[in-house]
Amino acid sequence: MRYELYYWPQIQGRGEFVRLALEEVGADYVDVARGKGGMEKMQKLMQPRSSEHPPFAPPFLRAGKLLIGQTANILLFLGARHALAPKNEAGRLWVNQLQLTIADLLVEVHDTHHPIAASFYYEDQKPEARRRAETFIKERMPKYLGYFEKVLEHRGKAAFLAGRALSYADLSLFQVVEGLRYAFPNAMSALEKKHSRVVALHDRVAARPNIAAYLKSPRRIAFNQHGIFRHYPELDAKAA
Amino acid sequence: MRYELYYWPQIQGRGEFVRLALEEVGADYVDVARGKGGMEKMQKLMQPRSSEHPPFAPPFLRAGKLLIGQTANILLFLGARHALAPKNEAGRLWVNQLQLTIADLLVEVHDTHHPIAASFYYEDQKPEARRRAETFIKERMPKYLGYFEKVLEHRGKAAFLAGRALSYADLSLFQVVEGLRYAFPNAMSALEKKHSRVVALHDRVAARPNIAAYLKSPRRIAFNQHGIFRHYPELDAKAA
Repeated sequence: MRYELYYWPQIQGRGEFVRLALEEVGADYVDVARGKGGMEKMQKLMQPRSSEHPPFAPPFLRAGKLLIGQTANILLFLGARHALAPKNEAGRLWVNQLQLTIADLLVEVHDTHHPIAASFYYEDQKPEARRRAETFIKERMPKYLGYFEKVLEHRGKAAFLAGRALSYADLSLFQVVEGLRYAFPNAMSALEKKHSRVVALHDRVAARPNIAAYLKSPRRIAFNQHGIFRHYPELDAKAA
Repeated sequence: MRYELYYWPQIQGRGEFVRLALEEVGADYVDVARGKGGMEKMQKLMQPRSSEHPPFAPPFLRAGKLLIGQTANILLFLGARHALAPKNEAGRLWVNQLQLTIADLLVEVHDTHHPIAASFYYEDQKPEARRRAETFIKERMPKYLGYFEKVLEHRGKAAFLAGRALSYADLSLFQVVEGLRYAFPNAMSALEKKHSRVVALHDRVAARPNIAAYLKSPRRIAFNQHGIFRHYPELDAKAA
């Protein structure tokens, strides 16, 4: 069965967390909106009457008869199907919990450049963005990174967030590090020194054969000024 | 087994979505932080070294050996245990998807009064809050309510979001309506006319015996200016 991923074609965004999972397990999938007529197909499925379970927003995944929306929900599904999460209840819930914490972080990252409204241009909320980004960098980035660092510390020699085996939350944390490096290079450079386990996890994920091949492929969209992670130098910390 | 719910003792907040599920099924639970020494217990469990699966933030639930964080994750667990979600995979994923959409809405509601930083007082971000609330009321509230209205319309005679049986997403949508009525009475009053199915669902939930008893009990904390839903008249729409 070929999965159909539906997401905005020009950004990594939330779709990237699903792509990374599909790529890691070598799933057969098509990134529908990047193909011919794909945007129309996607918008059709977003009509509330199109489906018994209409999605509120992309990304969503068609898997046979299932149409699944919400990033963490798609990953919950893929994690169970492709052994990207523990089978036991405690482990499954833990990986979902980590993913939801990453989802919270993503909203905060997005709102550094769009604190007032997603429907306004960045240029129409620049002073607010500066204030929000300043607090994000000072308070929230260290809090989130510190949390994941301590989770990894607790794992000891087990290499991943849920123990010895890779889970989709590890793939997502890799993407968070990638994104923060792009968006806030100065702030991130200072923080990486204190979060060596998070950085080491990022590197272990990047070195996995399927992920390494994906990152070099044209399927990986480059970071840009339209996604969740955007690089506006005025929002980053000053260089050390 | 007695559940232990850990959440800030003076607000409904995200904890309320868990309380409503526990109350509906008549679960044996204790709201730990509202009891003597409860805040210390909660803060101890939030230490990263306290647990194999430390929560990033309240609410979290102890269920025997499990310690479960993130509201939607707690509800996923309770939904399966107490028949507050369909048993089949499609239904289970659908209810989780709805809950995650409600979680997204809650962040947006919170940020109407805290668009710059959760750590600043409202008084220190009032002009920004006004701008954000205006767009929230004009664009986002109708979008979310319209989505749930259409989902219910699609259900036809089935009374609930996932079909004939109540799910935890229905309880959560009830709470969203309660909260929006408190925070934005003028905006909500105008919108309710166009969203009669959502209002009817709210009323059906409110009339359930266990929920009705809970709402009248001292266990239900009143809305106030410290939670997610806050009433600042200057952020509401003008009265019609």
